[in-house]
Amino acid sequence: MAQIQAAGKQFGLSRVIVNRRFVSNTLKMTTKTSPNGAKLKLRRVAVDTYHENVAYLNRQCKVYQAEGFQALSKVEVMANGRQIFAVLNVVDDDGFVKPDELGLAEQAFAQLGMQEGESVCIAHAEPPDSMEAVRRKIGGERLEIEDFRSITRDIVANRYSKMEMAAFLVGSMHTGLDREEIYSLTRAMTETGEQLKWNATQVVDKHCIGGIPGNRTSMLIVPIVASHGLLMPKTSSRAITSPSGTADTMAVLAEVDLSPERMHEVINTTHACLAWGGKARLAPADDILISVERPLGIDSEGQMVASILSKKIAAGATHLLIDIPLGPTAKVRHMQEALHLRKLFEYIGDRLGLHLEVIITDGRQPVGRGIGPVLEARDVMQVLENLPEAPADLRQKTLQLAGRILEFDPDVRGGQGYALARDILESGRALQKMHDIITLQGSRGFDFSLAPLHIDILAQKAGVVTTINNYQLARIARMAGAPMAKRAGVDLLKKIGDSAERDEPLYRIYAEFPADFNFAKNLANSDDGYTIGRAEDVTQAHMEF
Amino acid sequence: MAQIQAAGKQFGLSRVIVNRRFVSNTLKMTTKTSPNGAKLKLRRVAVDTYHENVAYLNRQCKVYQAEGFQALSKVEVMANGRQIFAVLNVVDDDGFVKPDELGLAEQAFAQLGMQEGESVCIAHAEPPDSMEAVRRKIGGERLEIEDFRSITRDIVANRYSKMEMAAFLVGSMHTGLDREEIYSLTRAMTETGEQLKWNATQVVDKHCIGGIPGNRTSMLIVPIVASHGLLMPKTSSRAITSPSGTADTMAVLAEVDLSPERMHEVINTTHACLAWGGKARLAPADDILISVERPLGIDSEGQMVASILSKKIAAGATHLLIDIPLGPTAKVRHMQEALHLRKLFEYIGDRLGLHLEVIITDGRQPVGRGIGPVLEARDVMQVLENLPEAPADLRQKTLQLAGRILEFDPDVRGGQGYALARDILESGRALQKMHDIITLQGSRGFDFSLAPLHIDILAQKAGVVTTINNYQLARIARMAGAPMAKRAGVDLLKKIGDSAERDEPLYRIYAEFPADFNFAKNLANSDDGYTIGRAEDVTQAHMEF
Repeated sequence: MAQIQAAGKQFGLSRVIVNRRFVSNTLKMTTKTSPNGAKLKLRRVAVDTYHENVAYLNRQCKVYQAEGFQALSKVEVMANGRQIFAVLNVVDDDGFVKPDELGLAEQAFAQLGMQEGESVCIAHAEPPDSMEAVRRKIGGERLEIEDFRSITRDIVANRYSKMEMAAFLVGSMHTGLDREEIYSLTRAMTETGEQLKWNATQVVDKHCIGGIPGNRTSMLIVPIVASHGLLMPKTSSRAITSPSGTADTMAVLAEVDLSPERMHEVINTTHACLAWGGKARLAPADDILISVERPLGIDSEGQMVASILSKKIAAGATHLLIDIPLGPTAKVRHMQEALHLRKLFEYIGDRLGLHLEVIITDGRQPVGRGIGPVLEARDVMQVLENLPEAPADLRQKTLQLAGRILEFDPDVRGGQGYALARDILESGRALQKMHDIITLQGSRGFDFSLAPLHIDILAQKAGVVTTINNYQLARIARMAGAPMAKRAGVDLLKKIGDSAERDEPLYRIYAEFPADFNFAKNLANSDDGYTIGRAEDVTQAHMEF
Repeated sequence: MAQIQAAGKQFGLSRVIVNRRFVSNTLKMTTKTSPNGAKLKLRRVAVDTYHENVAYLNRQCKVYQAEGFQALSKVEVMANGRQIFAVLNVVDDDGFVKPDELGLAEQAFAQLGMQEGESVCIAHAEPPDSMEAVRRKIGGERLEIEDFRSITRDIVANRYSKMEMAAFLVGSMHTGLDREEIYSLTRAMTETGEQLKWNATQVVDKHCIGGIPGNRTSMLIVPIVASHGLLMPKTSSRAITSPSGTADTMAVLAEVDLSPERMHEVINTTHACLAWGGKARLAPADDILISVERPLGIDSEGQMVASILSKKIAAGATHLLIDIPLGPTAKVRHMQEALHLRKLFEYIGDRLGLHLEVIITDGRQPVGRGIGPVLEARDVMQVLENLPEAPADLRQKTLQLAGRILEFDPDVRGGQGYALARDILESGRALQKMHDIITLQGSRGFDFSLAPLHIDILAQKAGVVTTINNYQLARIARMAGAPMAKRAGVDLLKKIGDSAERDEPLYRIYAEFPADFNFAKNLANSDDGYTIGRAEDVTQAHMEF
């Protein structure tokens, strides 16, 4: 702890923004066609198009007619030295967009950052130059760091369409990325965004590769580790395809969308925070790529490692613990695969100068009992409060992980981390730390009331629970409305190894709205995600610490 | 000729629609979530979204709020047993779409085929089941014909987003498709559409793999071959990324968007037609995949062969000539590659029971002089009219290809095709046949007047033209407005081997509108696409007939 305290109370959060300027210079250089002078009036169109910029042009617009924009999928919108790229939709309704106007959907309008009524030009947008590197990758070539830099810059500048990103992702899955390429991609993703620097020699973090519902260990590890005095400024994501992300669950208890100043204050006082990382622009290429990768259900090892490590480096972490859950319905299903992935993390971590350790954990079933924001927040508080009903597996996993992180402190003797973590938890210091963090971020109270509609899903026969399908339970919780409906989700009443009588409840579904309730019920009825068998059929967890 | 005439004057165009029913059955089975009963009023939104269905939902809509649709990229819209898939955009403007309405953009509205104000339901659209096969392909597995069937059915049912299609295309480029897989994909693409049957033993066709501007041989081959009595009902596509397709150039002279009855009549009278194939629903999966493949600039051998042959089989062709242009800026750049591709075409053709021959032609430069609809139509008519100014290379290539097709007739002796084609052309019979086809399809007159704005691009130094970049000339013509502005494009004044003085015009750019004109001029000034050198630097064409 000596080093961190020596650095003083002010950890000195600072953002490195040099790369942002770099991005826009690059854009100017790659612009191939100059504006033609035909001006259109900018109009904001109240349509939310998610991660894709959309521009609307009236079919009667002279610029449109003149330049054959119909067949183009992408245009460049320019004004006052700013430029964005957008997919073009053609409008036949003057009430919507007039012939002398250019409509921009919300995302595109915000990105251009101009006022309605101001003049803009449009031009043909050529495919991004770096697609040439993507095509070489598809053709089986190795890419150099400069290739990855140009790809990530173009992605961050919104020059890639979703299908171009899919081509990059599948292309780099395919021939695969070798270790050097993964290192290059990680660095390129880190560089094309902001980077946080901390005035501390140790900044610890943890990351789970995902796929296990209810796995909210971060909300427990952060207060334990910060109680010891380690600096753990944790930023997390909201759920994309899962029923809840750490940021969604933390948002039940406290504000998570913090200004840099507020975050600074929380960290200076508590040595930690549990914030949403969405606005920080850390490795932004990664956020954009994930919006394609997740719905496609493709997950390449190289992309995953680069994605995780670029975010952590950008966030200023010096010591990182990676959690790889292993199980038949986890992301990693075989020990050999887990060990291979561990080596890869270690290799890239070493190249990046990151102190990185990997832990392989039990991923056979969801962690804790609740799946969904409020249900998970309840589990977390039960563990912190040392209540007898607290889920034992969540507590146990937390102590194992927190113990390993505590051992990053040179003053903690190897093997003593677990006991130290347990002491901090049992003494109530972790609970106090969590209350401090919540209060400083902005408490939302501790309301764990659940959604009004609920149903118990019953065992079809008597026996012992032998498997629980992570994927199916996550899907049921999502259908029930989580994470948008925070009081919705699934509460597990039986876990692997538990006995159940016929018609005894396995889990309870909570939903806010009848439509969601029906979707989730129907899904659970078609496949409840549980297998009931004999005690000797339960497969044991294989873990490596 | 005996066989065809024996079959009678009526060639009996008939459509096989069995597969359409098959498609909708499949869809019903794969629907995972049932409508929840919450009805929305259908509203047509006058926005043209090209090849992607878009649905608009008000943010205040109760159904939307309840089901967390925000995070979803795709929804299923259902009513009266019909269903379509659409990307969801969320609207914050009641004037656009009210909270109790579901807006559908033009393409989606047309596809659902219902009236405004009718009731519809929406549900979560799960990723298409066949994505599982796509992921297996990405993982390096061989797919079976059933996999390709489920993929093409889902594509035709609009269940694939563009990024999912990109994943399929890149995935199958990558490990590559083996011959058996290409055969399976070709069959699957043919089956998921309509198929034309002709009451004739020989139905001839030709296809060029593309990439060479001005290559309008079909418009010459069809009248020559039909004059001899062979049946050649030619359907062509409009340009997607090129400055003109055969259908765009033919549309200068005649109607090309023919009803089945009109097409039938033209064919029965002339043994031929030159129509747009866009409405025929022949191998529709291919049209959809091309809308992703072209903008990505990826072109896998397997996808290309399956794309071409599925369309030809669906169109009822029995005898097919494939043209592979070879040159440094053609799609195929090395003879070895061309020969490999030829073998692949032959193999799949044989498996399909198609009589298929492949010809490798000179692809070093554009064919003829004009690039753009009117300019190309002018070249074609000059050749048919045997005018001295007719482009010699277009005429020569036409005779070689037409000669090979004429030799599909068992009564034409091997080696006699070329002379026979030349006789038909020189006698004026081909011109008469073309006039008959134009009159029956609906003549548009023979107006070859060009766009008003023009500029000559001059030689930078004296010498001999040694190379012309197909890609750059196509791009300049496209920027000048072709094919939307039909009188726009590029007219080549010098071809490879021609001498040029310094400042002598190499080609002339025509444009309809100042904005286009500037785009094209700037592009030509940055790179005119020509190399001027010494006569001995001219690389000779390598061709195989």
